[in-house]
Amino acid sequence: MGDRGLADATSVMLSHLSDDRVIRRIEELAGIGGLPEGGMYRLPFSPEDRAARSLYQSWAGALGLEQSVDGAGNLVVRLEGSNPDAAPVMTGSHLDTQPWGGRYDGIVGSIASLEILEAMMAAGYTPTRSVEAVVWAGEEGSGRFDLGLIGSRAMIGQLSNSQLSVECHFTGRALGDLMTESGIDLDRLPQAERPLGSIASVVELHIEQGPFLEEQSRSIGVVTAIAGNWRLPLRITGQQSHSGATPMPRRRDALCAAAEVILAAERVTRQARPEAVATSGFFTHHPKVMAIVPGKADMTMDVRSPDPEALNSAKDAILEQAAQICRRRRVELEVGDLWGVQPTQTDPTVAAVIEGVARRIGLEPVRMPSWAGHDSMMLGKRFPAGVIFIPSAGGISHAPEEHTKPEDIAVGIRVLAETVAELAESDR
Amino acid sequence: MGDRGLADATSVMLSHLSDDRVIRRIEELAGIGGLPEGGMYRLPFSPEDRAARSLYQSWAGALGLEQSVDGAGNLVVRLEGSNPDAAPVMTGSHLDTQPWGGRYDGIVGSIASLEILEAMMAAGYTPTRSVEAVVWAGEEGSGRFDLGLIGSRAMIGQLSNSQLSVECHFTGRALGDLMTESGIDLDRLPQAERPLGSIASVVELHIEQGPFLEEQSRSIGVVTAIAGNWRLPLRITGQQSHSGATPMPRRRDALCAAAEVILAAERVTRQARPEAVATSGFFTHHPKVMAIVPGKADMTMDVRSPDPEALNSAKDAILEQAAQICRRRRVELEVGDLWGVQPTQTDPTVAAVIEGVARRIGLEPVRMPSWAGHDSMMLGKRFPAGVIFIPSAGGISHAPEEHTKPEDIAVGIRVLAETVAELAESDR
Repeated sequence: MGDRGLADATSVMLSHLSDDRVIRRIEELAGIGGLPEGGMYRLPFSPEDRAARSLYQSWAGALGLEQSVDGAGNLVVRLEGSNPDAAPVMTGSHLDTQPWGGRYDGIVGSIASLEILEAMMAAGYTPTRSVEAVVWAGEEGSGRFDLGLIGSRAMIGQLSNSQLSVECHFTGRALGDLMTESGIDLDRLPQAERPLGSIASVVELHIEQGPFLEEQSRSIGVVTAIAGNWRLPLRITGQQSHSGATPMPRRRDALCAAAEVILAAERVTRQARPEAVATSGFFTHHPKVMAIVPGKADMTMDVRSPDPEALNSAKDAILEQAAQICRRRRVELEVGDLWGVQPTQTDPTVAAVIEGVARRIGLEPVRMPSWAGHDSMMLGKRFPAGVIFIPSAGGISHAPEEHTKPEDIAVGIRVLAETVAELAESDR
Repeated sequence: MGDRGLADATSVMLSHLSDDRVIRRIEELAGIGGLPEGGMYRLPFSPEDRAARSLYQSWAGALGLEQSVDGAGNLVVRLEGSNPDAAPVMTGSHLDTQPWGGRYDGIVGSIASLEILEAMMAAGYTPTRSVEAVVWAGEEGSGRFDLGLIGSRAMIGQLSNSQLSVECHFTGRALGDLMTESGIDLDRLPQAERPLGSIASVVELHIEQGPFLEEQSRSIGVVTAIAGNWRLPLRITGQQSHSGATPMPRRRDALCAAAEVILAAERVTRQARPEAVATSGFFTHHPKVMAIVPGKADMTMDVRSPDPEALNSAKDAILEQAAQICRRRRVELEVGDLWGVQPTQTDPTVAAVIEGVARRIGLEPVRMPSWAGHDSMMLGKRFPAGVIFIPSAGGISHAPEEHTKPEDIAVGIRVLAETVAELAESDR
């Protein structure tokens, strides 16, 4: 298809995008696993997650499109292209949420991908390359396990058997068991891997989850790099004792030691240049009793940066500070197996396509890193991948207050649609 | 009875104390609510607590002594004195434990009291005043509720109806409901109160729970004052957000704010002269998820000192620091209703009797405050009361490692026995 033909096809396709349908679907999904006090609780591989995927499948089914679920639980809806030999373009996101999470994270990109297939069909536009709309499985894994991006990991052959045995933080049950229970055929896990060259490009629409776009008054961000992370499992063992009768100088209080480590991590990352962040949300201590000096504290600290050096030096500095603090306080520090993912650079060509599309419709897109992890980060380690960001109100995500304005979603879907169409017609 | 007669009676009574029986009973009680990994979990008003009391009652029943349970659940075993008009001497402690607590805290004093009645009976010695061996109910309440010393509180008429509605930290159930379920007739609660003058004196044998006696190589401590405490319920509300995408300077992390408050309380009390202690064991935050900056933290901080001024100034300083920290971090601080008990001075006459007894048997007793709360602290607000301390190995209590040597227990029981006998013959 020539440039002129593509422009015509795209313009018809865009006229079939329905902002109302998108918002209605976001609301409908928010009813599955929504908490009475606000916020979403649709954990990966939970019954709620399955229900959300079924709803998505019913929408895809109404389009009469081919659907499949791979051995990692990734759900793929495929619009066949005119050239069956050409590698497909993939677009998608996820439907699971963090515990006490929001309604937009992952949902927007998932619904947008399906919306684009629907608009292409309604416009009678058959792209040259096939387009696959994907709901990746277990993206928010790290709300439940020491591991996230589970389905996309499998797509590049990096979901190991040992990872299948990580335990759910809430129930202690193994990831693999929960996947099997949710209907995933793990015997087919190896076939979930997509070989090198088998996907032409990947593009994901996602809410930013941070404050940058809003602060800059921009509606489209073009992601240049996706933050890597280190997960540092730290266990501090002090001496449980009486909260009255143990003199302060004699205490070996695991909670006080942990508090100092938490603040050290905050200080280290606040000073890091280039930037890094550290969070201790997954923290607990024992016992939790008023009249007892705690004897144990456990945390898995989440350290992130899109800059590899900043990421590693923050990790090293935190571990060094933790060791010093624990030595001084005469408590024991155990550092468990570190889990790490290095930052991913997005594909410059995909980024340029997104930027070109945004400019054509009169926007001023801004290049920026993603501080959140995304499935396209995993895919990007093997295939050309890009991410389109739209603003998050107040920069807040992974929280009930998460919100993105309908008009920002509409703009994002339009940019995604044109980007997918252009990539589907591209030789590369 | 003259001094000479008392000395004779006491010496016969002492020969009937059985150290073996005491140790055997401690071990038998440790089997009720003992945790597989070590430590005790015999929460106040739990089935395990009831089972421990039943066992104690079966021992008392074998002596043929009158037993009663008052409207707060205090269990009283009474050896009738020769003068039925004289106010009784009371001795006892408690059988409930902290969660993940020890085998000696409260248990030693409870078994010792019964042992003394048994020895008096075996010796054919009838004291002038009646002697009541008491198992106070819900002493370790603060392991389960925002309130401890429940039975002894009721004995001085200070267990209010509003206190009966405090909730169990683990189940959210109301104290009053749990008491009723454990067989206590709360309609009779007002009758649990002992009027002024109705008890001649109270004396309790207890493990120190701190390191002082061991450090000083003394086997008997004579308690001069019992620490009061403030319980500070603090709630910190920040903004839940994404652990990657929220830049450090923009965070309103409730866990980091709480960590700073915890360390401020530690610093304030380490510097306090006279001494005070503060503990944040009863601490929690929300959500507990790796990829989320926590939005909320709750703690009830336990502040204690036997010195009223140190207690109050530590409390004030902690609250002031907490307010400053939260202001600077742009998080909200809510201070709930403070619960406080002022320090109690023990009765100088009872203390002098304990000291005299200890010296007569060749010991060097040492005067010291109690940093832990005891039921005799409540009783001491209305009646002359004293506490005898014996050492805690390593100064550790409220922990599975809690231990007191059999020989220290034997010495403690001997001192308690002579003290009770002397008080039971005293005009005062």
